[in-house]
Amino acid sequence: MRAVDVLMRKRAGVELSREEIAFLVNGFTAGEIPDYQVSAFLMAVCLRGMSGEETVALTETMLRSGAILDFSGVPGPKIDKHSTGGVGDKASLVIAPLAASMGIVVPMISGRGLGHSGGTLDKLEAIPGFSVRLDEKRFHQVVSQIGFAMVGQTEAIAPADRKLYALRDVTATVESFPLITGSILSKKLAEGIDGLVLDVKVGSGAFMKTRGDAETLARSMLSTAKRLGTRAVALLTDMSQPLGTHVGNALEVEESLAVLRGNGPPDLTDLCLRLTAHMAVLGRIASSIEDAEKRAREELRSGRALSKFLAMVRAQGGDPKIADGGVLPRASGTKPVEADRAGVVSAIDTEKLGWAAMLLGAGREKVEDVIDPGAGFIVHKKIGDEVLPGEPFVTLHYNDPSRLAEAEGMVQKAYSVSDAGPIPAPELILALVEQ
Amino acid sequence: MRAVDVLMRKRAGVELSREEIAFLVNGFTAGEIPDYQVSAFLMAVCLRGMSGEETVALTETMLRSGAILDFSGVPGPKIDKHSTGGVGDKASLVIAPLAASMGIVVPMISGRGLGHSGGTLDKLEAIPGFSVRLDEKRFHQVVSQIGFAMVGQTEAIAPADRKLYALRDVTATVESFPLITGSILSKKLAEGIDGLVLDVKVGSGAFMKTRGDAETLARSMLSTAKRLGTRAVALLTDMSQPLGTHVGNALEVEESLAVLRGNGPPDLTDLCLRLTAHMAVLGRIASSIEDAEKRAREELRSGRALSKFLAMVRAQGGDPKIADGGVLPRASGTKPVEADRAGVVSAIDTEKLGWAAMLLGAGREKVEDVIDPGAGFIVHKKIGDEVLPGEPFVTLHYNDPSRLAEAEGMVQKAYSVSDAGPIPAPELILALVEQ
Repeated sequence: MRAVDVLMRKRAGVELSREEIAFLVNGFTAGEIPDYQVSAFLMAVCLRGMSGEETVALTETMLRSGAILDFSGVPGPKIDKHSTGGVGDKASLVIAPLAASMGIVVPMISGRGLGHSGGTLDKLEAIPGFSVRLDEKRFHQVVSQIGFAMVGQTEAIAPADRKLYALRDVTATVESFPLITGSILSKKLAEGIDGLVLDVKVGSGAFMKTRGDAETLARSMLSTAKRLGTRAVALLTDMSQPLGTHVGNALEVEESLAVLRGNGPPDLTDLCLRLTAHMAVLGRIASSIEDAEKRAREELRSGRALSKFLAMVRAQGGDPKIADGGVLPRASGTKPVEADRAGVVSAIDTEKLGWAAMLLGAGREKVEDVIDPGAGFIVHKKIGDEVLPGEPFVTLHYNDPSRLAEAEGMVQKAYSVSDAGPIPAPELILALVEQ
Repeated sequence: MRAVDVLMRKRAGVELSREEIAFLVNGFTAGEIPDYQVSAFLMAVCLRGMSGEETVALTETMLRSGAILDFSGVPGPKIDKHSTGGVGDKASLVIAPLAASMGIVVPMISGRGLGHSGGTLDKLEAIPGFSVRLDEKRFHQVVSQIGFAMVGQTEAIAPADRKLYALRDVTATVESFPLITGSILSKKLAEGIDGLVLDVKVGSGAFMKTRGDAETLARSMLSTAKRLGTRAVALLTDMSQPLGTHVGNALEVEESLAVLRGNGPPDLTDLCLRLTAHMAVLGRIASSIEDAEKRAREELRSGRALSKFLAMVRAQGGDPKIADGGVLPRASGTKPVEADRAGVVSAIDTEKLGWAAMLLGAGREKVEDVIDPGAGFIVHKKIGDEVLPGEPFVTLHYNDPSRLAEAEGMVQKAYSVSDAGPIPAPELILALVEQ
C-alpha cells in the first residue's frame, strides 16, 4: 500500500477501507509516513468528510495506538462525561465527585484550554499542590479508593491523537466532525469505560455555533461509540452565554465548591444534576432521570459530594483546606466593566468573553503560554437581565494590567443591550440525543 | 500573516488575495513555511479550486520565484509550443526547427517523461552526444545563432514550481487545473516569449481523458497567459491513439527525422504543420493559418527545417550524422504482438500502450529510473484499421526481456477489435480555443 494512493482515493471521495485508514494513522504515529502526506489527508477529510465506517476505523485505530485502561476490578459502573468546551464550563469539577458519591466510577482524563475555551486540568491546577500528572498505577489507586480521579492524558494514551492533533492545529484541519469524533472518543474510550455522557455545547461561546452542527457532531460520536461497544448519550446544551457566573481557573474552582455546597447558580447546578443523572441511568444504577436527579440533589445537600471532591483533592496532592476559603489564588486587581445605557441584555458574544479572559491571563493564546490562575471575571448580567447605566456587566480580575484595556473593550463589544422590551433567558438544555 | 489562517480561508472556499498566495508560495520556496502546511493547502486547492485571479497570482508568484530569460536582442518573434503530453508525441522535435526555419525564435525548455507519457528531453538524449543541459549563456548563444534550442529546466527557472511539483507528486495533488496552469505557465513564461501555442491532448493516452476537462484546462491557461500579457492559443488534439507510429526515444527521433524529410506519417505531419502555423500567426509573420501552413510545408520540402534541426543537434553536442542513419541506438530484439481474430480496431487504451513502452525501458516508473533509448514499439494498426488473425498490432523493440511478456499482455489488453463493420478514424484536431 502507498500513502499517495490512499490520498488519491480520499481526494476523489472514495470510502477508505479500515486497512487503509490504519495504514495511514499507524504509519504516521510510528514516524514512517511523513507529516506532509498526513496533512494533505486531513485536509481531504475536512472537505470530503468520512462515512460512519471510516470514522469508526479512524477512532479505533487511534484508540488502539496506545494503552486502554482497565478498571474492571473496581466495583460499580465506569461512566465518564465529556464536554466539547466553552466559557465558564466547570461542570466536570462538580459532576465527577457527584457521580462518584452516587457509586459511579469516574476515571476522568481531561485536557487543557486553548484560545477562548478553558480546560479542566488548568482549573484543577489552581488548587495549590494539586497534581494532574498521576502515573497509571496511582491513577488506578485513586480511582479504586475514592471512586474517581481527574488527570491529564499520559504518553501512553492515544499517542496517534497527540500527533494528529498537533498537525491539525497548524494545518487548519481542527474543525471536522469525523476528526473531532476520533480525537475525543479515542481518549475517552481509552479510560476503559462502560458508558459516556456527552455535553455538546451550542452557541457563541462553543466550537459548534449552530444547533445543527452540534447535533451532527453528537450523532457522529454516539454512533461511533455504539459501534465500538460503548453506551453513550448526548445533551445539546446552551453556550450562548457563560455557564454559571465565574470564568477563570481559581474563580471556577470557587464556583464549583459553591455548587457542591448546594448554593451555586441555578443554571450550572441544574446542568450538573442532569448530566450526572444521565451517567447514573447509563450506569444502570437509576431507572429514570427524575429519580437519579433527586438522588444527586441529595448527595449535594448532604455534603457527601463535597467530601468526595475534597478526598480526591487530598489524594492528588492538593490542599483540602480550599473548602474553608483563603487558599485559592486571588487576583490583586478588580475592575468592573459597566453598561453605558439602560436596557435588556439581548445577546452575548461569549467567544469574545472567553478571549477577554485569555487576555487577562486565564487562558492560552499558544500552547506554551503560562496561565495566571487568579485571573478571569465574574458575570453579573446574563441574557434577559435588565441593566442601568453604570451597572457592571462583569467584574474583571487581573494581576497583569498590560492587556486590561483590551479585555475591557472585548467585554463591551461582547454585550448587546436592547431597549425593545423583555427578552427571555435562553433554554439551558436544548435536546437529548440518544444512540 | 500566518499560514494556518490562509489555509483556513482556502479551506472555507474564500478567494485568497494575491498577497496571501505569494506569502505561501514564496515562504515555501524559501524554506520558511513547512511542507506539511503547503500540502494541506494544495489539497484544499484541489478540492476547492481557484478563481481566475488566484490562478494568475499563483502563476505569477511561481514565475517570479526565478529568472525570466530575455531574448529581446534576438530578432524575430519569440514563440513556443507546449504539449500536455501523451504517447508518441514527438511533435516538439519537428515543430521547433520548422518554426525556426520560418524565422520564429523558439527558446524551448522541456521536461522529462514520467509514467506512461514520454518527455522531449529523453527523446533528444537518444541522440549520441546530445546535451539538454546548457547554461543560460550557451542557451542564449544557440538560440541567437540557430533560432532555437531545446534544453531542460535549470535551477534558475521557476524554483517554486520544482518544489511544489515534488510535493504534489507525493500528496495526490497533481490533477488540478489551477496547479497545472501555474506549473506549465511559470516555466514557459520564464522563457521570455511573446506567444505560446498549447497542444492540449484529449483521450485515453492523455492526462485529460475528456474533451470537457481539456477545454477547462486550455481556458485556464489561456486566460492566465492573457492576464500576464502573453498571447496564446490552444488546440485540443486527439490522444485516443498514439501520435504517428513510433513510440520510444530513439524510435521517435527517427520518425521526427522522417517528418522533417517530408515522408512522415500524415497525422503527425499534419499536426506539426498546424501547430507551427499557429506559432507563425501568433508571431505575426503570417496572416492566416492556411498561408502559414503552406509556407511550413515548403520548409519541410526544401530540407531547410531538417538542416535547422541538424544545426541545433550539432550546437548541442549531438552527432549530426543521425540523418544518415545507423547512429541512433537500436534495440537488440523485436517481437510482434499479433491479433488473434479478424475485425476492425475499434479503440485503443493508449495509456496502457504507454505503460507497455515504460515496461520495456522507454519510460520511467519512478523519477530515478534509467531509460533505455532503444526500447519502445512501432504501431501498425490504428483505430479504424482492419486486422486479420496473426497480423501485428505493434512490434515491440526491447533489450531487456524481463518484462517483455508483461508488455505484450498490456498491448493485447490495449487493443479492442470489433466485427461490427467500419469504424471511422478519430479526428486529429478537435478544436481551436482562443484567448
